[in-house]
Amino acid sequence: MDKISSIRGMPDVFESDTNYLAELNEVLSKIFLSHNLNEVNTPILEQTELFVRSTGVTSDIVNKEIYSFNDRNEQSLSLRPEGTAGVVRSIIQKKLDNAEHKLWYQGPMFRYERPQKGRFRQFNQAGVELLGFEEGSSDLEIISIVCDIFIELELEDSVLKINHLGDKDTKEKFLLELLKYMKSYKGDLNDNDTEKLNKNPLRLLDSKDVDLKEFLDKIQSIFGKYVEIELDSSLVRGLDYYTGLVFEAVSSNLGAQDSFLGGGRYDGLSKDLGGKEMPAIGFAIGLERLNLIKKHKNIKSNKVISFVTTSSKMNALAFKIAQLLRSHNYDIRLETNFTDASLKAKLRKASKLGAKFVFIMGEEEFESDTITVKSFDEDGYQVNMSFDEILDFYKDI
Amino acid sequence: MDKISSIRGMPDVFESDTNYLAELNEVLSKIFLSHNLNEVNTPILEQTELFVRSTGVTSDIVNKEIYSFNDRNEQSLSLRPEGTAGVVRSIIQKKLDNAEHKLWYQGPMFRYERPQKGRFRQFNQAGVELLGFEEGSSDLEIISIVCDIFIELELEDSVLKINHLGDKDTKEKFLLELLKYMKSYKGDLNDNDTEKLNKNPLRLLDSKDVDLKEFLDKIQSIFGKYVEIELDSSLVRGLDYYTGLVFEAVSSNLGAQDSFLGGGRYDGLSKDLGGKEMPAIGFAIGLERLNLIKKHKNIKSNKVISFVTTSSKMNALAFKIAQLLRSHNYDIRLETNFTDASLKAKLRKASKLGAKFVFIMGEEEFESDTITVKSFDEDGYQVNMSFDEILDFYKDI
Repeated sequence: MDKISSIRGMPDVFESDTNYLAELNEVLSKIFLSHNLNEVNTPILEQTELFVRSTGVTSDIVNKEIYSFNDRNEQSLSLRPEGTAGVVRSIIQKKLDNAEHKLWYQGPMFRYERPQKGRFRQFNQAGVELLGFEEGSSDLEIISIVCDIFIELELEDSVLKINHLGDKDTKEKFLLELLKYMKSYKGDLNDNDTEKLNKNPLRLLDSKDVDLKEFLDKIQSIFGKYVEIELDSSLVRGLDYYTGLVFEAVSSNLGAQDSFLGGGRYDGLSKDLGGKEMPAIGFAIGLERLNLIKKHKNIKSNKVISFVTTSSKMNALAFKIAQLLRSHNYDIRLETNFTDASLKAKLRKASKLGAKFVFIMGEEEFESDTITVKSFDEDGYQVNMSFDEILDFYKDI
Repeated sequence: MDKISSIRGMPDVFESDTNYLAELNEVLSKIFLSHNLNEVNTPILEQTELFVRSTGVTSDIVNKEIYSFNDRNEQSLSLRPEGTAGVVRSIIQKKLDNAEHKLWYQGPMFRYERPQKGRFRQFNQAGVELLGFEEGSSDLEIISIVCDIFIELELEDSVLKINHLGDKDTKEKFLLELLKYMKSYKGDLNDNDTEKLNKNPLRLLDSKDVDLKEFLDKIQSIFGKYVEIELDSSLVRGLDYYTGLVFEAVSSNLGAQDSFLGGGRYDGLSKDLGGKEMPAIGFAIGLERLNLIKKHKNIKSNKVISFVTTSSKMNALAFKIAQLLRSHNYDIRLETNFTDASLKAKLRKASKLGAKFVFIMGEEEFESDTITVKSFDEDGYQVNMSFDEILDFYKDI
């Protein structure tokens, strides 16, 4: 029969590769919990309008990146391109937009644009949102969470760029001025730039010089000792909803697409989506990229041990012992091999699996309620142990 | 502006509710690792043909449940209804269908049918697949994994039903006989049943009585001491690809839709999807349902501590101490409150958050490099500590 292949740009993350997701989720969720954040899970699918309205009609996401389709009722739905819009939508829908929320999420996100090296149509992000908090200490807190990620994952060769776009009013006034000014140069721009200029001049030009350098300096002075922080007045971020502080972490190990974390303040988004005034700040991290640059090594050894029997009559006892062993130390990978293969074949297989020890239950052991432990280390010792002894041994491996 | 709501049947899992996913994933991944399984992640989206071919054209999944749509190239894509087909597809595609694989996965799955109480269009499953293993000890191993889940999560009022459908040849011969036999009664069936009969008689009738009771008895005798096991000759499972052992766990606490775990052997699936002969057995668990019936309590207390300052000049030092504290004990939720609010307001907020202690850095503490620890317990003590002392204190909370 014909083989069926995966959809273009949708990666399989297979066996040993996949540990990066489990590992990063473990480290990140630990950091997020320690900052008293709660996890939130919003759906993969949302109405397309949510992303059009939240990211802005001129943003790259809506123009070419969004993975949308019509459902059976001809309603336009989209696979979420990012996590913030769904979180804000869910808070408004639950009428919780009058309170403070400190949230984190993780999961797959989607884009439609042509897949490139290292850029898939399905990818994973983790993100943090502090909602209901005005500009001030929540901005510092969000940067402190970013710093903890840098420290815990030992991100070297990475820089955190920060900028301030002004509040919503300042930003709008500035845009009007800029528009007037730029229109006089219109003849010099190409069509694409002219379109961008009319719709959203911020995306064309560097951010303006406003009186917010002090705030940025403060961030740099508090957190500069943990991560390298760079003031970058050209930083605007790709999403239209940002106002106030914006930031982006880049690594020189990632090549041209060097950003792996980005965020900022989005005080206007809740109202844009039909909710109450709810100032907020957040960020998201690309887990595939984070995996490429982290120095952090998982200290778990996850040793493999193979447990073999020599006859099927031992099955009931052997499964009981396996269950007891596992429950005494979940960090050991206990491979059971209770097939009808020869002991020799089983030892060969254990060696191939990289087992550190083989636990053998043969006729003699079965009769005497013991197990033989054979070490696969260089010394290659072999010891017979009672069930109690082997439980103690297993706990401390 | 208008509010945008979530798509029908797509749940938000919000704040405190969401811990069930994190908690179940932690417990299950621990069990899976201890059985030497590796995690695999396949895409959310696949070609619709994959699910049509794998689950069988008459199965309920394809007829009404699959969430499919046409992409921009008019190709029919589907949000995965279950995890097995994608895993087998990925192994064939990577040309790994000639080896043994012991895998687990977890993530969102989708169905299209009308949402009902407790049945959403997006839901979460975890699953295990042992691929490349013939019938025999791998069947016992899969049941032992199921038992570990029962034990670890303390699933009471739950029963594991098992049955054997015969191997693929037996199943096909039996189906032919059954078809002949049933056709003589065709006049007595309604249209729906007649269609099922023509396409797949197994779904209409109880499984046949074959010479496999011994195998089922063996499973019951080995594992019956851990979980209640019931031989159920009417158990056929909803997916057409099963041959050999099938099983399903039900709980009397779940009402009419009482199944929360199901699986079985599917030796023919790899060839059906264009791969090599690859015998396999697996199961999947519905995490929302599992959450309803688990007695397991997460032992993590996740105590909240609020750390407050009385002036913004302390920010740099306070953030440094917060970072050190967190890195010394990630199980504590350390809430920092470095706003300009009054100390009284900050203490009130800490109490509202359920904080066990408040760490206070006021003028005196700032000058003397100390922190005051105020207990919110009944005794309500207050102690001044040096930075070293508070780190030691924090480690042991």
